[in-house]
Amino acid sequence: MKTTQYLLATLREDPSDAETISHKLMLRAGLIRREGSASGLYSWLPTGLKVLRKVEAIVREEMDATGAAEVLMPMVQPADLWEESGRWFDFGPELLRINDRHQREFCLGPTHEEVITAIVRDEIRSYKQCPAVFYQIQTKFRDERRPRFGVMRAREFLMKDAYSFHTSEESLAETYQVMHEAYHRIFSRLGLEFRAVIADTGSIGGSKSHEFHVLAQSGEDAIAFSDTSEYAANIEKAESLAPLNVRPEASSTLQKVATPDARSIDSVCQQLSVEPQQTIKTLIVKGALEESPAIAICLRGDHELNEIKIEKHPLVAAPCHLLDEAEVRQAVNCAVGSIGPVGLNIPTIIDRDAAVVANFVCGANEDGFHMTGVNWERDAPITETFDCRNIVEGDSSPDGQGKLTIKRGIEVGHIFQLGTKYSEAMKANVLSESGKSVTLSMGCYGIGVSRVVAAAIEQNHDEYGIIWPDNIAPFQVAIVPMNMHRSHRVAEAADKLYQQLRDAKIEVIFDDRKERAGVMFADMELIGVPHRIVISERGIDAGTFEYKHRRDNEKLNIPIDEVFAFVQQKVI
Amino acid sequence: MKTTQYLLATLREDPSDAETISHKLMLRAGLIRREGSASGLYSWLPTGLKVLRKVEAIVREEMDATGAAEVLMPMVQPADLWEESGRWFDFGPELLRINDRHQREFCLGPTHEEVITAIVRDEIRSYKQCPAVFYQIQTKFRDERRPRFGVMRAREFLMKDAYSFHTSEESLAETYQVMHEAYHRIFSRLGLEFRAVIADTGSIGGSKSHEFHVLAQSGEDAIAFSDTSEYAANIEKAESLAPLNVRPEASSTLQKVATPDARSIDSVCQQLSVEPQQTIKTLIVKGALEESPAIAICLRGDHELNEIKIEKHPLVAAPCHLLDEAEVRQAVNCAVGSIGPVGLNIPTIIDRDAAVVANFVCGANEDGFHMTGVNWERDAPITETFDCRNIVEGDSSPDGQGKLTIKRGIEVGHIFQLGTKYSEAMKANVLSESGKSVTLSMGCYGIGVSRVVAAAIEQNHDEYGIIWPDNIAPFQVAIVPMNMHRSHRVAEAADKLYQQLRDAKIEVIFDDRKERAGVMFADMELIGVPHRIVISERGIDAGTFEYKHRRDNEKLNIPIDEVFAFVQQKVI
Repeated sequence: MKTTQYLLATLREDPSDAETISHKLMLRAGLIRREGSASGLYSWLPTGLKVLRKVEAIVREEMDATGAAEVLMPMVQPADLWEESGRWFDFGPELLRINDRHQREFCLGPTHEEVITAIVRDEIRSYKQCPAVFYQIQTKFRDERRPRFGVMRAREFLMKDAYSFHTSEESLAETYQVMHEAYHRIFSRLGLEFRAVIADTGSIGGSKSHEFHVLAQSGEDAIAFSDTSEYAANIEKAESLAPLNVRPEASSTLQKVATPDARSIDSVCQQLSVEPQQTIKTLIVKGALEESPAIAICLRGDHELNEIKIEKHPLVAAPCHLLDEAEVRQAVNCAVGSIGPVGLNIPTIIDRDAAVVANFVCGANEDGFHMTGVNWERDAPITETFDCRNIVEGDSSPDGQGKLTIKRGIEVGHIFQLGTKYSEAMKANVLSESGKSVTLSMGCYGIGVSRVVAAAIEQNHDEYGIIWPDNIAPFQVAIVPMNMHRSHRVAEAADKLYQQLRDAKIEVIFDDRKERAGVMFADMELIGVPHRIVISERGIDAGTFEYKHRRDNEKLNIPIDEVFAFVQQKVI
Repeated sequence: MKTTQYLLATLREDPSDAETISHKLMLRAGLIRREGSASGLYSWLPTGLKVLRKVEAIVREEMDATGAAEVLMPMVQPADLWEESGRWFDFGPELLRINDRHQREFCLGPTHEEVITAIVRDEIRSYKQCPAVFYQIQTKFRDERRPRFGVMRAREFLMKDAYSFHTSEESLAETYQVMHEAYHRIFSRLGLEFRAVIADTGSIGGSKSHEFHVLAQSGEDAIAFSDTSEYAANIEKAESLAPLNVRPEASSTLQKVATPDARSIDSVCQQLSVEPQQTIKTLIVKGALEESPAIAICLRGDHELNEIKIEKHPLVAAPCHLLDEAEVRQAVNCAVGSIGPVGLNIPTIIDRDAAVVANFVCGANEDGFHMTGVNWERDAPITETFDCRNIVEGDSSPDGQGKLTIKRGIEVGHIFQLGTKYSEAMKANVLSESGKSVTLSMGCYGIGVSRVVAAAIEQNHDEYGIIWPDNIAPFQVAIVPMNMHRSHRVAEAADKLYQQLRDAKIEVIFDDRKERAGVMFADMELIGVPHRIVISERGIDAGTFEYKHRRDNEKLNIPIDEVFAFVQQKVI
């Protein structure tokens, strides 16, 4: 491709409306453009689409390799299928509902569980046809309340969604494992640093779930890893191991002390000269049962409540709701910062780490006072312990191997064992080997194809622009000739190399514009071409072209007649 | 692919709701399924998607070869862009208008002139960047009043749309020609019998247009061809040459004769014993000007009015409206079947062939009466002649070479020279070489990718099913083993050939079901696999496998050790 015959569409300045690195760079490098004044809707320009198609091709190859069959379902979906699954009513305004010219109700599909389940219940009749695995790479729509970060959280986006159907949980677990491995191959081939992490199944339901995260400092999610084993989990889900130490003996006397204006653990610690680990904080959440509308949670002062974990407790309402100042006063008649387990007359759940602290400080259930020298059992009963805190750096890994560290990630894939949620509601049954009707078990497996492009940039960039992994770079090689329009020798040499590379099916961009060298270098670095060849009069005089990799600072002078072979070996 | 591990989804019976051959066969062969109860929305099952992707790949390769740059624009488009072009108001209910959660107006894109023009006006600033040609292969939506014929007239469909931008009409004409040739290569490679025909530009506007039609008896359009030259045109547009013969001298006397109940040319001819060619019929259409609300059109009795041609006449209102019985009586005070040019006091346009008839019969402008022995000029003035009839088989070709024949076609592509319709409304200007701002000229070029699949079937089928052209067949080879589950030798031989073909990257379907031979043969013929290999005990005994091409009746016995090479050479 010659730049004079190509819509390079690079921008000198950062666009004002872009908040994240990837959004800025995708606009500046001419990968995408916003569609008119519409938020969350983007056109893919030639350079961006080349990257998107490469991601798509790798995903497709690995899906095909699992034996999954590719299908293509419509974007517009009839309401009646969504009424069958119940999601027509459950799904929020992210589901864009529309009426056709005959006032029939439809939606723009954010996902295709309903459509594929309707196909499967008609076409798959026997256990012999199972497991059946289908996938598509298709455009989805989610009417985000606040679309942002470019294609990272766009309204229209490209997704790979796969669905599997099984007559047994074992078969589902097997296919789940096959997909798990395929995802590993996909993200490895994409050249991204990633981790599969144990995830919460959330509102979509089901029993088991992993997210695949591209690691990047700018990631929205926190992920906990073992420093020695394979263990990784979304911090929402990461288990904190039960402490191994036994609670020390009670050695201090219970005392009530005045702590005026101490409304946080920090200020209590300061006033009483204790460490946060030596304090217990008590939070009140909404209860699940009518007879227990408020539930107390006790945590070590330096720990944080994990709302995802605690809402799984039968006494706690889901989604987790922390009582506010007024609600707390109604429930326990004191301020939020003054609650404590001593003499508390509502059900109390004690985090496992909180339960092994002795001689601690806690609120006195009276405004402006705390208790010191508090001991469990002696001063407050341990009614129940539970894992209800976020893990912290240095915690032991739940698999018993190594310590946990925390990194940030961008979710680009998610796999679920859904079970029978959809197949039961939509009556997707088959005849088993013994001739009985069985409800199919289902798995679903997504990859945000367009999101991968943005995540790759968040992970791979520098101050000059994008640094593409080779496998998804829009071009492999950039030819940058110096003063080509004044030097016939440079023009001829550049054109010859261009033709050689093209003939070898190597994707090459030849910057044949009448631009200053600085402008050409900047553009090729901005769009992130991995391999750059500079051709100049001086180089030709010395019998060399200059080579540089986008990730390296080092420049190499390669003898002219070896350049083609050198590049060819680099891009293989 | 083994059929036991594949969603073959073939049906024994014709589905009741399918009206056309291709719709029936696409359902029966398991290519598509309707999405729930929604009309005009289809999911592509694995076999159908394989075909669709092959069509898509050929289209993409040929578009890339023209130098057009692939982009991808959203399906959901903001109303403001359509308001700029004026089409938000002009487009009928086929444009599905939707509101997002913030009540902003959008539509589902049936086409992308507005979106691409908005990109181009921002990104293309100089004549140096022109011509600029972009294309996409993307899902479109048209809210058809009556979706039918399966994917032939679906609401959601896959389309290749391309757009070109130019600083001169000559450049537009050049790119138009490049696209014309690319379309020829595309439909040739697809293996379809097709014709490019001169088309009407219709409501989309512009100066020049060709349609590409796949020829099929079931086609909705009539196309006129020369039997000796390249001339072809949609009958809507096909010019009828001015007659070469001179009008004979007047030799009969004008007479008024009673023709009771003669309300058609046929009954007049019968009553008066004349041939239709010897009569003139007069129709009245709505006029374009207030002072001439009714315009008379005179045609030879055996000819038909071409509404597309006549509405281009400045006196005639567009779209063409034939006055009904009551309107005619108000305009000329007689019945529709009794009008004639003698003494008619409204503007009259005479078809060129009608103008060379002498001594003819026509209506007397009085109910129940006709005139005989009528002659132009002597009895009625020739105020104006015009080409206003449909051509008929046997007419001379307008290019002066050969006679016209008429065939039926299915429109699968359409190319337009649009001119400045969109670029002017949306202010897409660039700086010319002399530094002046010029409005870009625009071309647009569509192919109905999903429609091609249906059209290919309309053209290529028999009573057993689809007969795919090799280049778009879902599989190249079918292996049909006889009683494999009882014969180890057959199973082994079939499996060996299957592996050989797979290793050679030949797309093969191996029917390993426990089904009767008849069922397997029927399914492989239904889905239209071009090459079939039958493996049987008897064949193995004789040292041969049986080969048959889907189009041929002949079966060949091929020595076993030559089969792989034989097939390989067939599918190249």
